[in-house]
Amino acid sequence: MTNTDTKQFSKIVIFGVGLIGGSFALALKKQNVVQQLVGLERNQVVLDRALELGIIDVASTDISGALHGADLVLIAAPVAQTESILRAIYPHLQPHTVVTDAGSTKSDVVAAARRALGNKIHQFVPAHPIAGREKNGPDAAIVDLYLGKKLVITALPENQQETIAVVVNAWQHCGAVPHLLTPDQHDQVFAAVSHLPHVLAYALVDQISKQPQADLRFQYAASGFRDFTRIAGSSPEMWRDISLANRTALQKELAIYQTQLQRIATALEHSDGDQLLSIFSNAQAARQTWIASIESAEKPPREGGD
Amino acid sequence: MTNTDTKQFSKIVIFGVGLIGGSFALALKKQNVVQQLVGLERNQVVLDRALELGIIDVASTDISGALHGADLVLIAAPVAQTESILRAIYPHLQPHTVVTDAGSTKSDVVAAARRALGNKIHQFVPAHPIAGREKNGPDAAIVDLYLGKKLVITALPENQQETIAVVVNAWQHCGAVPHLLTPDQHDQVFAAVSHLPHVLAYALVDQISKQPQADLRFQYAASGFRDFTRIAGSSPEMWRDISLANRTALQKELAIYQTQLQRIATALEHSDGDQLLSIFSNAQAARQTWIASIESAEKPPREGGD
Repeated sequence: MTNTDTKQFSKIVIFGVGLIGGSFALALKKQNVVQQLVGLERNQVVLDRALELGIIDVASTDISGALHGADLVLIAAPVAQTESILRAIYPHLQPHTVVTDAGSTKSDVVAAARRALGNKIHQFVPAHPIAGREKNGPDAAIVDLYLGKKLVITALPENQQETIAVVVNAWQHCGAVPHLLTPDQHDQVFAAVSHLPHVLAYALVDQISKQPQADLRFQYAASGFRDFTRIAGSSPEMWRDISLANRTALQKELAIYQTQLQRIATALEHSDGDQLLSIFSNAQAARQTWIASIESAEKPPREGGD
Repeated sequence: MTNTDTKQFSKIVIFGVGLIGGSFALALKKQNVVQQLVGLERNQVVLDRALELGIIDVASTDISGALHGADLVLIAAPVAQTESILRAIYPHLQPHTVVTDAGSTKSDVVAAARRALGNKIHQFVPAHPIAGREKNGPDAAIVDLYLGKKLVITALPENQQETIAVVVNAWQHCGAVPHLLTPDQHDQVFAAVSHLPHVLAYALVDQISKQPQADLRFQYAASGFRDFTRIAGSSPEMWRDISLANRTALQKELAIYQTQLQRIATALEHSDGDQLLSIFSNAQAARQTWIASIESAEKPPREGGD
């Protein structure tokens, strides 16, 4: 007989058992804090694979049964599916169950959650773990994906402190460090430092691939190009969805960037080296400051408990 | 007594003994193919340091003496200094000496060389080793910087085969793999895969640093941002000079990119997911093909000799 009394969660349900949901499951298993991990997933092959890899204890296709007795539900499916998953959850959601997500955008998720969950919205705590890999699927899941990484929680006014604490607690067991932002802050910040760079990298590789002598150009691309375009190796479908889900904030950042490029184009036209140097120097200095700050901050915290 | 007969080069002179020139010197020393390595450098501290580190055998401030008996001269100083260095070399250049450079742009270097060297232009073989690090100066120099890396030679119609062979030979001793391009081809290719990405990375970091809540934005920047902006850590002065030296080709690439971004802005405005997906998918596929091609090609060649 296992001593289930010592486990903090009797049941956690994960929608989407790929990289994000799978790594969450693996980390919680390692901490031995969940009695039963149940996975749900549109794609049966993926679901079977997650079970085979021991990421989940139970592969389910029955939402009602899966949700019964669940302490926590994590939605780690593509962001475009969030609303339909929440609608499917709603009728089976028990009062003590907390729901969270792992979507890369938050204002749209909050709007979808309000539509789908209505009077149960207080049970939903929107969140975004800042971690990833280029690989996807259950085979890409790793136990330490979240170790020392940020978890952004964009709590709602309706959330009670103990509801938020359930989400914080689960993610802290994964080694993540919780941070609070509003949904708007989150979306503006990530449009600037993540969504726009993805768009810029895709745009450059697409441009080069469509030029005459594309092969010649690619032949001489070196390590700087490789790093600059690494994020253009990410899932196109996922980034289409993120771009559309966060399009207001992304449009704003892109417009500022277009003005910035026009400034550089004008400087080139006038051979204005001072203007170029001013932009380049400021960027280099800002990046150095940033790198120094993350290097001092990024020592992974030791987890409490064992 | 050392057996100097076995060494291919009796004297090589290097203008600029930082990362590029210093790594060239270290690789040739390791191969034991040069009797004497002479360094010249504007900055006396740098010159002394290169001597102290054993990168060069002789630190010189006397161009006439340094050039006397030289087989090969490498100009590895900032590209903006190339013409004045060539002018200083001209009166002391003996008929058997071959001159080359390591500049990141080539059309402007060729034009400068024609102005500075006149009737001795056939002794100048323009080149560009495709290798680098973020660090600069003699302390950044490493013996294997060029191992398996491309050396682009943009030979002139005036160059004789045996003149080009001297440059090829020296760089092959460093482990570099020679490629031939015209100066125009070189500049267009590198505007696309190197110079434009540098400008784009600088532009993004500068933009974020000047926005309200810049600190908050930087706080959530993660590994994708770090890689995307790595090249924005490069020397602002060097990239100002490269941008101006190659401004015609860079302007052209930048204009195409601005059109590309406008296409994306329009797609966002119309929530046109198909258009976004088309750009993102094409970019992802092109990058995968490119990565596969460099992974199969980048096994460093074994050097001949010992």
